[in-house]
Amino acid sequence: MEDTYRLVVACPDQVGIVAAVSGFVARHGGWIVEASHHADQVTGWFFMRNEITASSLAVSLEQFRREFAPIAAGYAMEWRITDSREPQRVILMGSRESHCMADLLHRRESGELNAHIVAVISNHEDLRRMVEWHGIPFHCVPVNAEERDRAFREMEALFQQYETDLVVLARYMQILPAWLCKAWAGRVINIHHSFLPSFAGARPYQKAYERGVKLIGATCHYATEELDDGPIIEQDVIRVSHSDTIEDMIRLGRDVEKAALARGLRAHLEDRVMIHENKTVVFT
Amino acid sequence: MEDTYRLVVACPDQVGIVAAVSGFVARHGGWIVEASHHADQVTGWFFMRNEITASSLAVSLEQFRREFAPIAAGYAMEWRITDSREPQRVILMGSRESHCMADLLHRRESGELNAHIVAVISNHEDLRRMVEWHGIPFHCVPVNAEERDRAFREMEALFQQYETDLVVLARYMQILPAWLCKAWAGRVINIHHSFLPSFAGARPYQKAYERGVKLIGATCHYATEELDDGPIIEQDVIRVSHSDTIEDMIRLGRDVEKAALARGLRAHLEDRVMIHENKTVVFT
Amino acid sequence: MEDTYRLVVACPDQVGIVAAVSGFVARHGGWIVEASHHADQVTGWFFMRNEITASSLAVSLEQFRREFAPIAAGYAMEWRITDSREPQRVILMGSRESHCMADLLHRRESGELNAHIVAVISNHEDLRRMVEWHGIPFHCVPVNAEERDRAFREMEALFQQYETDLVVLARYMQILPAWLCKAWAGRVINIHHSFLPSFAGARPYQKAYERGVKLIGATCHYATEELDDGPIIEQDVIRVSHSDTIEDMIRLGRDVEKAALARGLRAHLEDRVMIHENKTVVFT
Amino acid sequence: MEDTYRLVVACPDQVGIVAAVSGFVARHGGWIVEASHHADQVTGWFFMRNEITASSLAVSLEQFRREFAPIAAGYAMEWRITDSREPQRVILMGSRESHCMADLLHRRESGELNAHIVAVISNHEDLRRMVEWHGIPFHCVPVNAEERDRAFREMEALFQQYETDLVVLARYMQILPAWLCKAWAGRVINIHHSFLPSFAGARPYQKAYERGVKLIGATCHYATEELDDGPIIEQDVIRVSHSDTIEDMIRLGRDVEKAALARGLRAHLEDRVMIHENKTVVFT
Repeated sequence: MEDTYRLVVACPDQVGIVAAVSGFVARHGGWIVEASHHADQVTGWFFMRNEITASSLAVSLEQFRREFAPIAAGYAMEWRITDSREPQRVILMGSRESHCMADLLHRRESGELNAHIVAVISNHEDLRRMVEWHGIPFHCVPVNAEERDRAFREMEALFQQYETDLVVLARYMQILPAWLCKAWAGRVINIHHSFLPSFAGARPYQKAYERGVKLIGATCHYATEELDDGPIIEQDVIRVSHSDTIEDMIRLGRDVEKAALARGLRAHLEDRVMIHENKTVVFT
Repeated sequence: MEDTYRLVVACPDQVGIVAAVSGFVARHGGWIVEASHHADQVTGWFFMRNEITASSLAVSLEQFRREFAPIAAGYAMEWRITDSREPQRVILMGSRESHCMADLLHRRESGELNAHIVAVISNHEDLRRMVEWHGIPFHCVPVNAEERDRAFREMEALFQQYETDLVVLARYMQILPAWLCKAWAGRVINIHHSFLPSFAGARPYQKAYERGVKLIGATCHYATEELDDGPIIEQDVIRVSHSDTIEDMIRLGRDVEKAALARGLRAHLEDRVMIHENKTVVFT
Repeated sequence: MEDTYRLVVACPDQVGIVAAVSGFVARHGGWIVEASHHADQVTGWFFMRNEITASSLAVSLEQFRREFAPIAAGYAMEWRITDSREPQRVILMGSRESHCMADLLHRRESGELNAHIVAVISNHEDLRRMVEWHGIPFHCVPVNAEERDRAFREMEALFQQYETDLVVLARYMQILPAWLCKAWAGRVINIHHSFLPSFAGARPYQKAYERGVKLIGATCHYATEELDDGPIIEQDVIRVSHSDTIEDMIRLGRDVEKAALARGLRAHLEDRVMIHENKTVVFT
Repeated sequence: MEDTYRLVVACPDQVGIVAAVSGFVARHGGWIVEASHHADQVTGWFFMRNEITASSLAVSLEQFRREFAPIAAGYAMEWRITDSREPQRVILMGSRESHCMADLLHRRESGELNAHIVAVISNHEDLRRMVEWHGIPFHCVPVNAEERDRAFREMEALFQQYETDLVVLARYMQILPAWLCKAWAGRVINIHHSFLPSFAGARPYQKAYERGVKLIGATCHYATEELDDGPIIEQDVIRVSHSDTIEDMIRLGRDVEKAALARGLRAHLEDRVMIHENKTVVFT
């Protein structure tokens, strides 16, 4: 796969945005290998993502940013351009269950996931051996009821120390404090083990079993101050029946969780996700 | 397909139930073409369905019932035996939207649905022409806010008059009164246009759109006094994205509604569904 | 939904195509409500579809075509622009099985399908009553082994007479002659009752049953001279098990056939499908 | 989960089989927690699986076998009874690609897979480090064109040496010789990276890409002398589009391969799979 730049834009919709942006890209020789657009009829917002072959661009990224700025300003754009050669710095957070952690670490190991996993944080020691085998620093930060806030301050210090771009809650079973969700808005991805908004909060498989649903699911979303209510990136489900116990649901659900998290994370890392008013645009 | 009897049993679990029942069937020469069992580890109940070739049974249905009664009593069974040659008498209820109604009528017309659709009731006239073309009586019973109860009394009179076994709410947009749900418990099937328990009540697609879910669904369930909370028979989902408007969701959802309702209804008509404590066992 | 024009373009890829097209549209005030692009890395071709609000365009369609022609020529484009207010003229062809026919007719009836169904052709009389109830002319053209060619000449005369844009084989069980496929390339859509390329040709459910597959499917594709080998528009599958007989597979398959055909047809009617070298680009 | 015995039976169908078997089980106090039956109308064969709580049985497994033998003989049964506490001895075979191997090893590590993985064999060294970290012996047996047969003789010696019950080809890219498939019939499970019977043989994703299919899949099946033609245990698919390159298909396919293999293998290990005339009965 060739190296690319990803130009991501959101702004109030009007005539001529695509022409302005694509004209600018073309003037600098930019070869667009993938382009996605979305005009939201309800909010009146426009979203665009262009993936441009890095070698085709006649100017440096810095120069591109400088020259594009006035165009962006003219359309009141929120925008960014990123380089596929500069993978995001990611911290994974886990607890005792290993399936999502093992899945993401293997995807990284095999080169499928374009991210730099800088550290793993957990409130338990269980995953240390697996993580360290991958050569990744492992930090155990226990979370006690009395000192919750101090623990999360310590974790945020680690986020800072590792110059973290993104935090992934890979079945991290603690609720993040509101101040942390706020400070890291749009940069914390969670996998919830239900098809939200059904069964938010604790023990979703137990609740699904009791309700007698015929499909169970998982939801990959951004963490926000309100629990399990953040913008949804990806969801998936699997069929269950009366013969499945809660243990069966937990087992079947693990595969759905892994898949939904991996797909959602991949979309984020490739700059395919744009958040707008607690919903996402996902260009896949 | 051969004519069959369906022997359906539920009772507290203990050793020897299958032996007792299958021994009884075998002694009368019964050829079992399909057998399903479920032992619920949580409730301690046992569920069983045997489908027996009608021509293989050496005794009449009446005699079978008489001789089986003491065995059933010995195990405290809830049980029934039905004849595939005696299709259930079904009333369909609709409103203005035609997709579920047209789908069920066509399945009946083509011989796929083994039911006797004795009448259609609606609170609007829109579906009359289509229903009457199929040669089925159409009753328009408007539901006004002031006279809701009288309207539903009139409808129940129709249920009685037609010797109805089952009522199917094929996108009937009115909420049934509690007394009717109670009187017809286990005999009214509804299709709700969301993946319950998400988005119960009115305007589920609107709510799904606002929440930004990535899958929408439909739920076929028995109507109970508590709205959209009855035992679930069947559910299904379809993928949506940021580019789908509410209108798109409504359109995509129609296909899911039709499929989930048709499958759930079929299971009920073939005596494959057993209700226990607000959940279902569905032998498919 | 607002009225729109759909500008569809395919050409060898190079820098500046999007800029040229979107610049042209913007200069005429065109409001793009949906835009899709695909750059095929293997063939080096570029595909684009723009949906433009009709009322936003300052020029007539004729004038648009005239002024766009030189730009199109400059990039060696294959292109078309169509008007959502001018539904395509469609002939449905069926045989004895009614499920796809009934499904499409109902979608038309309820306003979901933006097409003008000008006639139905069948080699049997079975569907006449249903079709004529919808007010659509029904032509029965029997196909005998000795006079196959004459029958298809007669059918093509009907295609011409009705000024047909598109022919849909809704479980039409006859193989079209090569000359007809050639003459109507890209304008005949078929639904095949298997997950192609598995089980091409006759009796796919029989073959699927014999092979013991665990999923069965359906394929919506353009008819070409080589049987069941044309460009695929849409496919879908459903789970089966050892307990499903061939009759069960046929029944379950009907729902998959209806869904795949309806989705593929809709994509075609909305000018979302582009054919290139026996494959399709489908912008959904 | 409680320890259980699994009694698995196949025989020509006749009246009274269930009564005979369940009567026998009941007489020895056997508590049946799960029972599955299948009467094949085409072949006239009957299949049954009973899962019996180990602690409920009043007799030893040896005594059960001895006393059941005459009943089995009376119905010409093929049968076996296995103990959930005696996991099968499994050899995994891989090549260079790690995703299926890593997935199975993690499922074993986390206790999800009830198997004793006694060794891994590969024709390359790539997976050694990962396998040995799990504490499992790793054997590299290169396969050269000139000495294929000697290599497979060496592998079969390893099968024997490890007292292997089952061999799993976890993306092992070599074709097993006919004599080995024959000798180990029903004991070698393969994962093929296509939705068979489409794209059997080499490079299925390449073929799927060229054909332009809209879904790709994977098939878990028993290896037989005819390549990719053995009894199918499990299949699954995932949606692709024109925008997916072959590399995308390979990546998306990996998740389908892992899931289909894990589910098929689990079914086999729980004695849920019965082979009959190149097809399977899978009791799930």
